Amino acid sequence: MDLKQYIRDIKDFPVQGILFRDITPLLGDKDAMSYAIDAIAEPYKNKNVDYVAAIEARGFIFGAAIAREIGAGFIPIRKPGKLPCRSEAMTYDLEYGSNTIEVHADAVKPGSRVLMFDDLLATGGTMKAACSLMERLGAEIVATAFLVELTDLPGRLMLQKYPIYSVISY
Amino acid sequence: MDLKQYIRDIKDFPVQGILFRDITPLLGDKDAMSYAIDAIAEPYKNKNVDYVAAIEARGFIFGAAIAREIGAGFIPIRKPGKLPCRSEAMTYDLEYGSNTIEVHADAVKPGSRVLMFDDLLATGGTMKAACSLMERLGAEIVATAFLVELTDLPGRLMLQKYPIYSVISY
Repeated sequence: MDLKQYIRDIKDFPVQGILFRDITPLLGDKDAMSYAIDAIAEPYKNKNVDYVAAIEARGFIFGAAIAREIGAGFIPIRKPGKLPCRSEAMTYDLEYGSNTIEVHADAVKPGSRVLMFDDLLATGGTMKAACSLMERLGAEIVATAFLVELTDLPGRLMLQKYPIYSVISY
Repeated sequence: MDLKQYIRDIKDFPVQGILFRDITPLLGDKDAMSYAIDAIAEPYKNKNVDYVAAIEARGFIFGAAIAREIGAGFIPIRKPGKLPCRSEAMTYDLEYGSNTIEVHADAVKPGSRVLMFDDLLATGGTMKAACSLMERLGAEIVATAFLVELTDLPGRLMLQKYPIYSVISY
């Protein structure tokens, strides 16, 4: 199935000069969505993955479905102040300003094997911070997985420490 | 399976006097998470549901997994400014202030049958606004479904127009 048929290009979103790859038509098509979940999960079946960790908010959409498919638990990596228990935080630089993500301090036992997921690999900054955060908890990163990868941006360079898997490339 | 075993009570979160039902232990347990997805989806299999619509952010975690399970597409209902195409918005009152949610104007064809999902039914205000938003697009609401329902709050009264289903009640 050619999943690109279900991705819509939106010019100048969220800001002038950015071509936004809109996955909502893919989500809305039951066959395309199911195919995408299978495609992301397939390489990680029978790889002893304990958890899939995904990044708020779009990462959550596929994250739990992938976790279920490979027989793993799900860990939400959230924006600041959203998690109710003691959390670890990681702040990272953006082009303008900075961003912070958090995860519950007790989300994994040390040595747990974690598959990291987000819908989009662009500069890789958010995923790199998420991986560092999980490693601080003692997790072993199995791989970083994405539905869409933008290959003209340095995401792979940023994540070179980890295996990288994406289903759709531009 | 007694899913309440996997829900953690946190006092005074997000504000003093609120007992927060933390579902992250349930998400992290692969068997409990999978059981919860099945429990939510089961009544809606073979009911000709076209879409599951879920509310950002925690609603996204189960939403797509439920959609896949019942053979439906997925529609994200988002916070303002997140959706790239022409959107419809709905503003509703909170105890203090107001909130706005949005959905793509072309998310459904009129007459589509939509199952609404969020993780928690408390006052029902957000879900009522989400249902109204989908109805404005011409959707038929099959039901509102929740993982957790707080029965000491007037959520059922707020949503009395619709069938209401929840897996765990407090």
